[in-house]
Amino acid sequence: MSYRTLSEQEAVEYARSIPDLFPQDAQLVSREIGDGNLNFVFRIQDEGPSGRSIIFKQALPYVRVIGDSWPLTLDRARIESEALILENELYPGSVPKVYHHDTKLALIVMEDLSEYQIMRKGLVERKRYPNFAKQIGTFLARTLFLTSDLALSPVEKKRKAASFTNPELCNITENFVFTYPFHDDPSNAYNPLLSDTVQRIWKDNVLKLEVARLKEGFMTRGQALLHGDLHTGSIMVTEEDTKIIDPEFAYYGPMGFDIGALIANLLLNYSAHEGHTLEPQEREIYQAYLLDTVVQVWDIFEAEFRNLWAEKAQEPYAKTPGYLDAYLRDVLQDTVGYAGCKMMRRVIGLAHVSDLESIEDPALRAKGEMLALSIGQEFILKRSTIASVNDIIALVTSSTVRQ
Amino acid sequence: MSYRTLSEQEAVEYARSIPDLFPQDAQLVSREIGDGNLNFVFRIQDEGPSGRSIIFKQALPYVRVIGDSWPLTLDRARIESEALILENELYPGSVPKVYHHDTKLALIVMEDLSEYQIMRKGLVERKRYPNFAKQIGTFLARTLFLTSDLALSPVEKKRKAASFTNPELCNITENFVFTYPFHDDPSNAYNPLLSDTVQRIWKDNVLKLEVARLKEGFMTRGQALLHGDLHTGSIMVTEEDTKIIDPEFAYYGPMGFDIGALIANLLLNYSAHEGHTLEPQEREIYQAYLLDTVVQVWDIFEAEFRNLWAEKAQEPYAKTPGYLDAYLRDVLQDTVGYAGCKMMRRVIGLAHVSDLESIEDPALRAKGEMLALSIGQEFILKRSTIASVNDIIALVTSSTVRQ
Repeated sequence: MSYRTLSEQEAVEYARSIPDLFPQDAQLVSREIGDGNLNFVFRIQDEGPSGRSIIFKQALPYVRVIGDSWPLTLDRARIESEALILENELYPGSVPKVYHHDTKLALIVMEDLSEYQIMRKGLVERKRYPNFAKQIGTFLARTLFLTSDLALSPVEKKRKAASFTNPELCNITENFVFTYPFHDDPSNAYNPLLSDTVQRIWKDNVLKLEVARLKEGFMTRGQALLHGDLHTGSIMVTEEDTKIIDPEFAYYGPMGFDIGALIANLLLNYSAHEGHTLEPQEREIYQAYLLDTVVQVWDIFEAEFRNLWAEKAQEPYAKTPGYLDAYLRDVLQDTVGYAGCKMMRRVIGLAHVSDLESIEDPALRAKGEMLALSIGQEFILKRSTIASVNDIIALVTSSTVRQ
Repeated sequence: MSYRTLSEQEAVEYARSIPDLFPQDAQLVSREIGDGNLNFVFRIQDEGPSGRSIIFKQALPYVRVIGDSWPLTLDRARIESEALILENELYPGSVPKVYHHDTKLALIVMEDLSEYQIMRKGLVERKRYPNFAKQIGTFLARTLFLTSDLALSPVEKKRKAASFTNPELCNITENFVFTYPFHDDPSNAYNPLLSDTVQRIWKDNVLKLEVARLKEGFMTRGQALLHGDLHTGSIMVTEEDTKIIDPEFAYYGPMGFDIGALIANLLLNYSAHEGHTLEPQEREIYQAYLLDTVVQVWDIFEAEFRNLWAEKAQEPYAKTPGYLDAYLRDVLQDTVGYAGCKMMRRVIGLAHVSDLESIEDPALRAKGEMLALSIGQEFILKRSTIASVNDIIALVTSSTVRQ
């Protein structure tokens, strides 16, 4: 079947035709649950005794959210399904299970996570996730280490890198994360109260030079298979469990980009707390929880990465004393730099985050946004001085006090 | 036609069947001119009035030189022909013209350069090439800049990078340049008089850590389409002209690897002069010529790269003050590091160079080899201190004096 978008009814029929997915006598009903900007997403459920439900996701060949018609490759559905399958091999249970995928129709049939919540929403509600750091730190270490030249044969790694070539989705990041927010681009959308600060940023050539270098690294440094868009909206959580979804931006890039995306989004929530109307103590407690999560994520990532290095490295130089420490320090410094870009773009650029947007009063929101910009700049400019995750926390808290 | 190796007679018939290559009444004779280890190379010539000749190169599916049967992908013939065609577009006349190529048969029919000499041979004969630095510096700037994200759209660049994925040939470099020479590997072959030095190198964890980082850069940093094996045996010269041949190692890698390969080979010849029996003045004059060539190659590369940046950069950050200088400094430091690895591997590893091998007396040869090792180590360890090509020359001359 060549590509065409399926109606809700056709999706139900398609799901019914997949062997072993539903019982023969299933009474399937479907409900659209996506926003239809990039993909059609249906939940299809058996109202009969099995009660089983699945997610049916079909990519659309354009992006409605940006312009009226911005074409976007359907190949992202292949990338997403292959990334999900690989991630599940590398860290079983960390992503929704893929039951079926169809490259021509650009669709994926996968596990329904209806009992999970998007993590960003949970953080906005100031929830806590006691297993999250352990689960995401392990996910990062396993997916990054095990897809890199450290673990794979160089031939296998280069074949994987070629197969995960994802130029159109990468280009969205190149433009909307690295370029537009740091230039006076019509796509930008920021709180008018930040106008002076944003103007100053656009003229800051020292900062822009460092963003240029980070962008060049994003574009050229194929270390490992990244998720490519690992913000807290790409993570679904329960109190016990964590699932990473939507790896349609997956490609071979610098490890620090994924870790940085995650840390940036924890710190965007941290920054938003400067603008929330709260008892100071409540704010401090939750901010401390977020900082502690940042530390734990890195610590668990590092510990698991060191284990994998000891057990599974096939690179002959892995045994060279000092190489592991040097490698991790480079990943940490990249992490900080990319986190800085990600924080700044969510304040200045097109796509904002509900952590900040949920603050209605523009003056209060500006307090959070200013802190995010301030941490972001510190991260970008001082990343080469960072030697441990505690240095990251020190940059965050010194920015918070100075503000 | 599926792959099979063609006999000399079949090659002649194949050449005759290519339209417009030879006149109808051509009297074609063929002579094998390659060594048949990796490829069959025939010169096919019209003994009739056209006098025309071409080179007929067919890849073999194995390497005879290393083991009895080491299979090697035929895809390298596609890579080589596509790289030659692209290089000729980027800098017309810099490579042999491709008249015809056939991916299934892994063959390339190309311009005969019989009036040219392999540059390494010319340097061993202490010849001079007044236009060489200008031509190779321009070749490097144009092929590297114009295939990078600086010049291409990011989508086009990633498509090119995927199409030039060349894992098997890269793996030869990874092993024989970066890994084996720095470990006690059975493939190594060095002058027994160097034994103590080589043993010391294998135990030098500071050096090995830096080689590991350079190797990681070679494996992950897809900045530009490299020639991938740009030593003086891949360059053919006349007194006036330069042609770059044999880009079968072409792939997307760090720019400094190509420039470093070239500089390493000029400095291997420089080092060999420590062992040649020559009037001191004659040695000094030729060594000075070689150092001057290194400086000119870099200076011309840099000047042309700066021109291209000003005229053709599409990367928005190219206008950011300081970015060009920072970019070039990174390329320069990579150049120095890769040159160091390349020099050391030609002394310790499997593949040696006639610049040194032509010194028959092992004790005299060891003088040249020791200088090459000493420069190589300085380059690898001190590359991050290099800010200009003059710093490179200072490292060379201080190694020469200290020896």
